Amino acid sequence: MKLKVLWPGKTRNKDIKNLQDYYLRRINQIENCELIVTKEAKGLAEKHGERIKEIEAEGLEKHFKDDYIICLFHKGKEMNSEEFARFLGKVTTHSAKAVTFVVGGFLGLAESVLDRADVCLSFSKMTFSHELSRLMLLEQIYRSLTIVRGQQYAK
Amino acid sequence: MKLKVLWPGKTRNKDIKNLQDYYLRRINQIENCELIVTKEAKGLAEKHGERIKEIEAEGLEKHFKDDYIICLFHKGKEMNSEEFARFLGKVTTHSAKAVTFVVGGFLGLAESVLDRADVCLSFSKMTFSHELSRLMLLEQIYRSLTIVRGQQYAK
Repeated sequence: MKLKVLWPGKTRNKDIKNLQDYYLRRINQIENCELIVTKEAKGLAEKHGERIKEIEAEGLEKHFKDDYIICLFHKGKEMNSEEFARFLGKVTTHSAKAVTFVVGGFLGLAESVLDRADVCLSFSKMTFSHELSRLMLLEQIYRSLTIVRGQQYAK
Repeated sequence: MKLKVLWPGKTRNKDIKNLQDYYLRRINQIENCELIVTKEAKGLAEKHGERIKEIEAEGLEKHFKDDYIICLFHKGKEMNSEEFARFLGKVTTHSAKAVTFVVGGFLGLAESVLDRADVCLSFSKMTFSHELSRLMLLEQIYRSLTIVRGQQYAK
């Protein structure tokens, strides 16, 4: 099994970056998980939102191959941590494909990316900053792996 | 208006602590918000969960006075960020009371605290670590204040 996490652009907040690295290390102690930081659209004003999302979609889609794609999307399916763990256990067990999580930039994901998703997941009805959302995803992947493996979550 | 945030025990993770301080500073640029770290139950094994929650409840309840109490609780009401902003705008405008958010320790909140709550809120069906939940709360308070005031969210 291989997990991949894709998002456009580096995480700028140093503390969030440290925490992402921390959870990524934890995840990799249990399961192979690669973070790929894809191309970020730069130098475009926010009014060019659709163009920004298109540019970032190109960067993301390059890495999709025939992976099982899970997008974080505010209108996606909500699961609790146990359901998410069972879901992740199932897709990683019954598929030879890589399982790839995709988080958008600060404007979210293009339609083309959402259309390609096998599943869209929502972590909360609330909107969190995209950098914090990345962190919440990694924490939840780590948590779900500890649930699936019956390991103690490192507090 | 006065906002208060209560939780038992210091935040141990240095990066999460930095981020909590960051959002607290941001919030205080808009609205007076005091973080009170209450007594944490120490030296008790997890099997004494009820006793741990009781001890922490005592520490929290000391600060409740006649405040409007909002507890974070996984079975609480879910709102999106706009609904949360309107809700927070309403309770802070129509009440002379302090508005006090309460986040539990790693075992959650005692029944007595939940019973005293005016509202219980859930940020996600998923379980996040209690330190990350604290951070999510502060980010969301900051976001809601920027929505209420029509200010730009500092990315």
